[in-house]
Amino acid sequence: MAEPLAEARRFRLLIEYDGAAYGGWQIQPNAPSVQATLIKAARDLGTGDIDVQGSGRTDAGVHAFGQVAHLDLVTRLDADELHRALNAKLPRDIRVRTVQAVSDDFHARYSATSKRYLYVIDQARLLSVFARGRVWHVPGPLDIAEMRQAARRLVGRHDFSAFSSKANTRPDNVRLLRAIRILPGRHERLLLVFEGEGFLYNMVRTLVGALVAVGHDRLPPVELSAALDHGDRSRIPATAPPYGLYLWRVLYGRGTEPLPEGSC
Amino acid sequence: MAEPLAEARRFRLLIEYDGAAYGGWQIQPNAPSVQATLIKAARDLGTGDIDVQGSGRTDAGVHAFGQVAHLDLVTRLDADELHRALNAKLPRDIRVRTVQAVSDDFHARYSATSKRYLYVIDQARLLSVFARGRVWHVPGPLDIAEMRQAARRLVGRHDFSAFSSKANTRPDNVRLLRAIRILPGRHERLLLVFEGEGFLYNMVRTLVGALVAVGHDRLPPVELSAALDHGDRSRIPATAPPYGLYLWRVLYGRGTEPLPEGSC
Repeated sequence: MAEPLAEARRFRLLIEYDGAAYGGWQIQPNAPSVQATLIKAARDLGTGDIDVQGSGRTDAGVHAFGQVAHLDLVTRLDADELHRALNAKLPRDIRVRTVQAVSDDFHARYSATSKRYLYVIDQARLLSVFARGRVWHVPGPLDIAEMRQAARRLVGRHDFSAFSSKANTRPDNVRLLRAIRILPGRHERLLLVFEGEGFLYNMVRTLVGALVAVGHDRLPPVELSAALDHGDRSRIPATAPPYGLYLWRVLYGRGTEPLPEGSC
Repeated sequence: MAEPLAEARRFRLLIEYDGAAYGGWQIQPNAPSVQATLIKAARDLGTGDIDVQGSGRTDAGVHAFGQVAHLDLVTRLDADELHRALNAKLPRDIRVRTVQAVSDDFHARYSATSKRYLYVIDQARLLSVFARGRVWHVPGPLDIAEMRQAARRLVGRHDFSAFSSKANTRPDNVRLLRAIRILPGRHERLLLVFEGEGFLYNMVRTLVGALVAVGHDRLPPVELSAALDHGDRSRIPATAPPYGLYLWRVLYGRGTEPLPEGSC
């Protein structure tokens, strides 16, 4: 007779996904979600009260290179076997990059100390067919020096109510934005990196929309400081589209990785 | 009263496309084609016996960075206006990169002197979700020195019957393969560049399949020389998939651009 299974063990997953086909990370009634797709794949591989807890939500259409989640599972599989088995069951637009067995005191959301997002702007006159759905196409020049000056005003601990679409539904909109980097990339790309303790709903995309307006000389950098003070969403330009945004890395513990150099 | 229109003028188009949604370049009864999509877009912009002649066919699912075609059109638009108008009408997976007015003696197919194809292999253990449909995933090491040795056997003027799926339906299967380059790329990519006067049906993909078999030590390089001699398709391994292949450049006139360095 087979040995009885041990109790549930916790696994930490590093996950990459193309957000195009999903209503976001979070389980929701009327759209496929990355979380539900992972739970469905895990259900075939073990027993227990299977849930996959992410480090946080990503919106509809937003991508991830490095979402982190944990999963409690009663299974005979070890971490490597679970890794292969999950990828064999998942659709090709979600890949589990690594699986580690972790202790129960690791929590993907509550143990996270920082998140790093990447936003990719493509400034080419014509958008390549191979960049569709992966970048925000903003053809033509942007004043990067002005954008960096504006970014310096945003870094720090502030009430970001003016930079969230749902700020009025939440009691506390103060967040620590640790750093912004604005880095020219290859092929007429501009990369915007945001690192912070946490982000409000739509906050990164709203910051990007505001910074692009600054780069187009449609919004003076001082307006960003004013927006942090008055909290008025209506004076901040349109939110940047989701398909240029990537949850790049979730950090556990401080100072583990330096940000790329370039500015701010 | 408006001035009567002049007669048809010839325009040269440089075209990029993502081949995933198309049955190939060529008009065909049961699948959408890049050529038919371009003709449909051009029909709204002028009159005449509108046809779009490409430099050659690409198979179902094959991509292009630099397909070249010509179009004869009776139109009041100049080349720049036609360029913008075509892109406004085309779906996002086809982009016209440039439009030039050319004389009637330019012919996209008959004036071409060489074509350059790029094949992209991804050797990463896990294929990134963002590379899906753009590369052939061949995880693990390949013996590049052996592949280069094998490539040297293929370069030159040969009967490539053994490297085409339809060789037996054509009278002449001799082609000049000018060069092959095998270049390590970024992110565990291996880039294979083929330049030749012309290519048989499926020839580049068959050459790639054979070179990968050499790189896996499943086919000795000498077998490629034998295949050129005996013309027997059955001893050559499976054809590489279409989605790693890009029609990179069509050359008109000799020696216009050096190939990237690296080998062969």
